[in-house]
Parts: sequence; structure tokens; C-alpha cells
Amino acid sequence: MSAPSSPADVRPALRVAVLGCGVVGTEVVRLLTTQADDLASRVGARLELVGVAVRDVDVPRDPVVDRALLTADAEGLVEKADVVVELMGGLQPAKDLLLRAIEHGASVVTANKALLAQDGPVLYAAADAAGVDLYFEAAVAGAIPIVRPVRESLAGDHVRRVLGIVNGTTNYVLDRMATEGLDLEQAVKEAQSLGYAEADPTADVEGYDAAAKAAILASLAFHTRVSLDDVAREGITSVTADDVAWAERTGYVIKLLAIAERGETAAEDGSTTAGIQVRVHPALVPAGHPLAGVRGAFNAVFVEAEAAGELMFYGRGAGGQPTASAVLGDVVSVARHRVLGGRGPVESSYAALPVLPASAARTRYQMRLEVADRPGVLAQVAAVLAGREVSIESVRQTPKGEGRVVTDVAMLVITTHTATEHALRSTVEAIEALDVVRRVVSVLRVEGA
Amino acid sequence: MSAPSSPADVRPALRVAVLGCGVVGTEVVRLLTTQADDLASRVGARLELVGVAVRDVDVPRDPVVDRALLTADAEGLVEKADVVVELMGGLQPAKDLLLRAIEHGASVVTANKALLAQDGPVLYAAADAAGVDLYFEAAVAGAIPIVRPVRESLAGDHVRRVLGIVNGTTNYVLDRMATEGLDLEQAVKEAQSLGYAEADPTADVEGYDAAAKAAILASLAFHTRVSLDDVAREGITSVTADDVAWAERTGYVIKLLAIAERGETAAEDGSTTAGIQVRVHPALVPAGHPLAGVRGAFNAVFVEAEAAGELMFYGRGAGGQPTASAVLGDVVSVARHRVLGGRGPVESSYAALPVLPASAARTRYQMRLEVADRPGVLAQVAAVLAGREVSIESVRQTPKGEGRVVTDVAMLVITTHTATEHALRSTVEAIEALDVVRRVVSVLRVEGA
Ligand SMILES: NC(=O)c1ccc[n+]([C@@H]2O[C@H](COP(=O)([O-])OP(=O)(O)OC[C@H]3O[C@@H](n4cnc5c(N)ncnc54)[C@H](OP(=O)(O)O)[C@@H]3O)[C@@H](O)[C@H]2O)c1
Ligand SMILES: NC(=O)c1ccc[n+]([C@@H]2O[C@H](COP(=O)([O-])OP(=O)(O)OC[C@H]3O[C@@H](n4cnc5c(N)ncnc54)[C@H](OP(=O)(O)O)[C@@H]3O)[C@@H](O)[C@H]2O)c1
Repeated sequence: MSAPSSPADVRPALRVAVLGCGVVGTEVVRLLTTQADDLASRVGARLELVGVAVRDVDVPRDPVVDRALLTADAEGLVEKADVVVELMGGLQPAKDLLLRAIEHGASVVTANKALLAQDGPVLYAAADAAGVDLYFEAAVAGAIPIVRPVRESLAGDHVRRVLGIVNGTTNYVLDRMATEGLDLEQAVKEAQSLGYAEADPTADVEGYDAAAKAAILASLAFHTRVSLDDVAREGITSVTADDVAWAERTGYVIKLLAIAERGETAAEDGSTTAGIQVRVHPALVPAGHPLAGVRGAFNAVFVEAEAAGELMFYGRGAGGQPTASAVLGDVVSVARHRVLGGRGPVESSYAALPVLPASAARTRYQMRLEVADRPGVLAQVAAVLAGREVSIESVRQTPKGEGRVVTDVAMLVITTHTATEHALRSTVEAIEALDVVRRVVSVLRVEGA
Repeated sequence: MSAPSSPADVRPALRVAVLGCGVVGTEVVRLLTTQADDLASRVGARLELVGVAVRDVDVPRDPVVDRALLTADAEGLVEKADVVVELMGGLQPAKDLLLRAIEHGASVVTANKALLAQDGPVLYAAADAAGVDLYFEAAVAGAIPIVRPVRESLAGDHVRRVLGIVNGTTNYVLDRMATEGLDLEQAVKEAQSLGYAEADPTADVEGYDAAAKAAILASLAFHTRVSLDDVAREGITSVTADDVAWAERTGYVIKLLAIAERGETAAEDGSTTAGIQVRVHPALVPAGHPLAGVRGAFNAVFVEAEAAGELMFYGRGAGGQPTASAVLGDVVSVARHRVLGGRGPVESSYAALPVLPASAARTRYQMRLEVADRPGVLAQVAAVLAGREVSIESVRQTPKGEGRVVTDVAMLVITTHTATEHALRSTVEAIEALDVVRRVVSVLRVEGA
């Protein structure tokens, strides 16, 4: 592709170091090797892989990885590179290695959401001081270009809300529960056997992975520092097969969502504080919403902006090759800056909006109650909601035995209009205390309506 | 937002000129005005609107536009700006004004797909020579970030195929035909009354607008110059209510697609040439495909890349505000480069792939035939296909009167496996010549399966 006299061959090559040679690292090495000519043409200089840092240089690896490039001396390696790509994961030594690379003037690319959600500001500040690029497209939603669109394409707009399906494992699990009627445990086992879920699925099913991505997305969308601790988090472990079936019956699909939105809290004196609210939890999404159609292990991020309106970005959120594609896009960007001058976007935290507490979140709710099947029950329940200014959007009452044995218990499904989490909690407590209510079976938030 | 001592206030403001104050220009002026503080923080300098060029300074306009800034002297205006935003449309004087702006060292942003599809290379070359940015996110699919993802995020990957719903008017029309059973004329009228279609809807319904966008997308995705003349184009005017109904019955939705994909042609001597194929035509999309769910006037671009896999970008493809959002994103990018140094991506045409003729396109087909309702007919039709090496994927035969009058005519719906357009055409001719075939009712391509 690149003729011998093309500018890419005349310029000195850029030295690229890859830290980590696991699922993603191996595919990054593959792309750097197989696409070398194309990359040279796109960057304007050849990208020379100068080393691949691993823990153990002796374990067998994919043949695309030249064993002569493997090293256990990551610290030494980062000093020899123009571009350092961190794909080791974990907080340390990833953080120190990135800082060391930056200090030595290298541009850095990472896919490490855990580290960014924890220590992003330190890394941004170091990159800023050194005048180098810090790129991380792969850290959120794998292959899906979302970081670049949010921090560049939407830079002239005002983002109102971001709703993301950013964890493929949980989306796969919920999708199988919905389509095959599996229960959570069965679906998780299936995901594990297919390699979508880890042996220990905690980070996924408890929403920690999604929370890290929510923090990163919120920071970018609202020009405000948001860390993992700011994210209210709830996983999918309490979602039952019954919840999923009821969701379908009432026109919804259950998805684990990462949500970042503008909002406000009211103080006792009536004054309000504007800020943002960031959270991760399972939610009912209307069946007609674009996010409802996101199947299997796919990811999607839905953005509502003032001028642009509704946008959605869809694709594979994980996997070696998809993630490597996003990493390489970043490598090309930072490498081009080294060839042509200039820098990409830096941290933008000028807005410094307060992060509001979880109790300030406003959303719609669907609650499912087991109640005594006799007249007047709905009136009692409705009175409790009205007393707390939670207004009802729709009610559906069905004998619990529906189609089977007739019992004296009915199921009451109430969908509310928007209410604060605070108001809802106190409502649920009061409903639970009613004599006619046997059990509050579930309370789920409704999003995207 | 920006304290008096912020860097944005210390640096000299960047002078922005807007050419055109119509649907999009007005909204760009509004965002520049209402978001001024945010923009300054994001750019690192204030953006000062120095003038708005129009044909007629005296017509009444939206009050957000300061009349003192209006001028009919576009040529004079471009010389006074650091960033020129072209939103006049049309080939001239837009082209000369952009060249003039570039010559004077301004960075330029445009939403003008017609001009880019026609004269893109001239503009790129000029921007390159002058060392300034030429950005055009809004030219394809309005508010949807697609230009930036394709030319930056996917720069390390190998794009195989792009399938886009890039014209909101035709998508609205086809959607109304599908959901309301309207015929084409009724749906177009409805689109006109809602302002989605122009009084003269030719550019939309005949696929010219989509073809310009296809050319731009193909250029970016395949690093090859593709102009409007390279795009095989077919509009939606021949799509009937009956086609739409049959599509649904067989599990498809009809969409007008802009398609750019890698392919090859075989010469007489058996040698093959690799290249790309770019076309616009109505197609059957399987009901489960993400593009099938794109409703109303929304746009979406579906990308298949080697490493990233399947990606989709969804949002509003037109309208003043959405388009202005994309324009402002570009303005922020080019303005940041002026403040911090550097330049964005330049034209990448190194791959210089040949654009293959329409006859080389390979796709699946669905044909609907009216045939005599007697034994042996299918055998005859199948023999014609087999003789031309077009293999059948599925066949469905129904008495035409289905549910109404019984006639001696049946409808035969044949879906083929992949075949070249060339093979298909000769097949259709031969089928038409069969005695037992009354009429070839329709031949539609099947895409995205
Ligand atoms: N996998 C995905 O689909 C995906 C998607 C998006 C983002 N990410 C992110 O990408 C990063 C890498 O993920 P992965 O799945 O590729 O991880 P992985 O398969 O576990 O690979 C980690 C690699 O890093 C090396 N490594 C770990 N600690 C090291 C140390 N202290 N010194 C030197 N090398 C060390 C390991 O060396 P050995 O080979 O010698 O053990 C291994 O090669 C993580 O931040 C992850 O969150 C992954
Ligand atoms: N509308 C959309 O949704 C959309 C979406 C994507 C891209 N675009 C693209 O954006 C561009 C603008 O579209 P639009 O819908 O905003 O067009 P529009 O409403 O027709 O506005 C055109 C503006 O340009 C001015 N103008 C035209 N010719 C001029 C000349 N020779 N000298 C000075 N001013 C001139 C007009 O002045 P007067 O006001 O004095 O007539 C008018 O203000 C086009 O390239 C279009 O393809 C539009």
C-alpha cells in the first residue's frame, strides 16, 4: 500500500510499547502487525512495536506475538516508547507505569476503566503537565465510539442525560432470562460457559464494572469530575424470572442501566441545587425504546442532548478484537498528533457540578404488590401514594392464580409518574404497613420513557 | 461559568463567521449565543460571532440573530474570520467562499454534502496546502456523530461495509407506508405537510441526497476518493404499498439504504479486481436487524469492521437544532486547534481503491412473481435460476386471491442467496420470458442479513 517513497517511510518510526498481552493486548499486537502498512499511511509514520510487557515471559502465547519483544520489565519498556498502550488492568502497577510513561514524554492509551474511574484526575493532570495525550476510548463500551463523540462531537451541545447498557455480561443474562425464561442463576452459568462472564461474576452482576463506566461517561458528558464513589450502584442479583416475565407483560424489558443526568435537590428552605445524578441499577425500559432492542452481549449508549436530541451508539462492548479496534483508533490519533503536532482534548472539568445524592434521583416506578383480593384495596393503596404526592400513571390488577387456581390474593401492578427516590421509599414503607398488602414483590424504576 | 480570570477570557477571542442564516444557520447562531460561556470554557477562548452572511439582509429573522451582524457581503466577511461556517448550501458561491476563507487562513466547517460529494478533493487540497482544518460532521446524518467515528475511532480497523439510513424524509415515508398502510403519494404528502419533505421532494425520494452522503461515507471508510458520479442510485418512487405489505409478511422492512462495501469483479479471463461498491437503493432489511427498528425521520448508520464487528450510530439526521449541534462540535474542534495548535485529520485517499460498477454488487434478492397456479411452474422458474447459478434460499407460493376470490393466478416469492446484480438481471429477463409467468411484480435486494 505505502510506496517506498511515501512520507510514512521517510519519517522515523514511532515506537509503541504495549503493556499486557492478554485478551486485548494480543489483539492489539495482531492489528499493529497485520495492519502495519495501512496504519503507516493513516498516521504518516510507521508504528514500530518495541516491546510487550507481561508478568511471565515464558507462558505460551499466540504466535502473532514475537517472543523476542516480550519483557517482564515494564518500567524499562515505557521509557523507550513514544506511545504506551496500557492493557494490564488493575490499579497498580498500571497507574505508576502510565505516570512514568507520561513523565518520559510518551502519549498514552488505556482501556482501564477501573483505574480511570478511581484515579482519572491524577492521570489527566500528569498528561496535561507533560503536554501529551491520554486517550481511553476502549474503557467505555469496548468497540463503540462513545468517548470521542461525547467529548468532541457534542462539545457544542448541552447533554441532559446519558443512559447506557455498558456491561455485556449482564445484558446477556437479562436477555436470556427474557427470551428463554431462564432464572438468573441459570443465565449466569450459561454466560460463564460461553466466556461472557468470569468465574467470579461479581464485578459484572453487582454493577461495579458498569459503575466505573458511568463515572467516566458522566465526567465527559457534564464536564465535571465524577469518581466511582459518586455512583449509586445496584446490580441485577435481585432480578427474578418473575420480574422479567411481568416486565414483558406490561410492555417493558429489564436492562441494567448506567445513568448520568442533570437534576436538582430541594433543601428544607425550598432552595434548590442543580447538579448531576449518576447511578447504575436494573430498570424497566419501554419495549419500543431503542435500548430495548439491544440483545445478547451488545452494548449501547443513549444520549439526550439539548440540540442534537436523541442519539444512540451501539456495538460490541467487550472482547479482544472489538476492544483492540477502539485501542488502535486511539493509537492512530495520538500518533498523528506526534507526527503533525497538536494534542487531543484534555480533561474538561470546568463545570464542576455537584454530584447529587441517590435520594435526589427522579424517575418513574413500577411496583408489584400481592394484595387481598377484595374491594377497596386499591383505594387504600392509592391513598398512600396520594399522601406522598406520588401520582399514579396506570394500575393493573390480576388475580394471582390467573389461569390456574383461584385464590384470595391479587397482584397489583402500579406504575407511577415521576417521583423522587426519597418519596418512593417512604411510600413503599407505608404500603408495606397496610393490612391488605401481603407483600411488596418488587419495585423497579422505569427509564427512557 | 467562566470566572473573569479564566484562560478563555485572557486569550484573544476567535472570530467566527457564519455564511447562511436559514434552518441550520439560525440555530448555529443561537447556540453560539446561548452557550457562549460553555463554549469558551471548552475551547479555551471566547468565540466571537463577527458576521452572518445572507442573500437578503432585510427579511425578518429570528430575534436571536443580531441584525447588525447581517451582511450581504459574504466575500468580505470570510476575510475577517478565524473560523468560517458555511451553511448556505448549493455549489456556488459556497465553494468559492470556502476556498477564499481557506486561502485567508481560516479553518472551515460546512454541512454541505452536495458540495463535498462533488468537489471534496479540491477543498481538502486547499485546506491541506493552507494547513487549516476542514470539518463536516453535519454533512452526513445530521446530528449523528459518524464522520468523526469513521475517520478517527475506526482508523486502526478495516471497514468492510457501511449501511446507512441517511435520508430522514424517505425513512419517514417508508415507515408510514409500513405502519399505516399509506401509499407512496399519501405518505409523501404527509411528510410535506409536516415539513419533513420539500415542496419538490425529488432530491430525497429519488435518492440524490442519500447518494451524496454515500459518497462521503465511502471516501472516509475506504480511504479512497468517491464522488457522486460513482454512486449507483435508485430512489423509492417505485416502492408500492403492496411491496411494503409483502415485506412485512416475509419478515422484512423496506428501507432506503446508502451502501458502501468492499467487493471484487471478475474479468473474462478469471482474474479479479478488488475494489469498493457504492450504491443507494430501497432494500429489504430483516425485521430483527438494528436498522429495521429505525423509525420515522430518524437516521442510522450501521458499520461492519473487521475487528470492531457491528456498530450502529443512531439519531436525528436533519432539522435545524440537531444539525447545528454537529456543526458546533466541529467549531469547537477546529477552534481548539487554533488555540492549542495542531490539526484534525486530513483527507485520507491513500488506498485509492477502484470503484466497481453497479453490476458487480453482490447481494441477496427477493422477487415476487405472478404465475399460473398449476403444478410444474416452480420447477420451471427454479431451472432458470439454477441455469444462471443463482441459488434459492426460500420459496413461498400463495394463491393470489388469498382470503378473497380464488383465481388461477398464484404469487411466488423467491428469496435468493447472494448473487451478482449482473446474474440477477439476466435471470429476471429469462423468467419474464417464461410462458407460465404473468408478471415479475417486484425485485428487491435484501441487505443486512
Ligand atoms: N477483555 C475485554 O473484553 C475488555 C474490554 C474493555 C476493556 N478491557 C480492559 O482492558 C484491560 C486488559 O484486559 P484483558 O481482558 O486483556 O486482561 P487479561 O487478559 O487479564 O490480560 C492482562 C495482561 O496484563 C499482564 N499483566 C498483568 N499484570 C501485570 C504486571 N504487574 N506486569 C506486567 N504485566 C502484567 C498479564 O501478563 P501475563 O500474560 O503474563 O499474565 C496479561 O498479559 C483491562 O483494564 C480491562 O478492564 C478489557
Ligand atoms: N436543514 C437541514 O436539516 C440540514 C441537515 C443537514 C445538512 N444541511 C445542509 O446545511 C446547509 C444549509 O441548509 P439550510 O436548510 O439551513 O438552508 P436554508 O434554510 O435554505 O438557508 C440557506 C441560507 O443561506 C443563505 N444564502 C443562500 N445563498 C446565498 C448567497 N448566494 N449569498 C449569501 N447567502 C446565501 C440564505 O440567505 P437568505 O436567508 O437571505 O435567503 C439562507 O439564510 C445545506 O448545505 C444543507 O444541505 C441541512
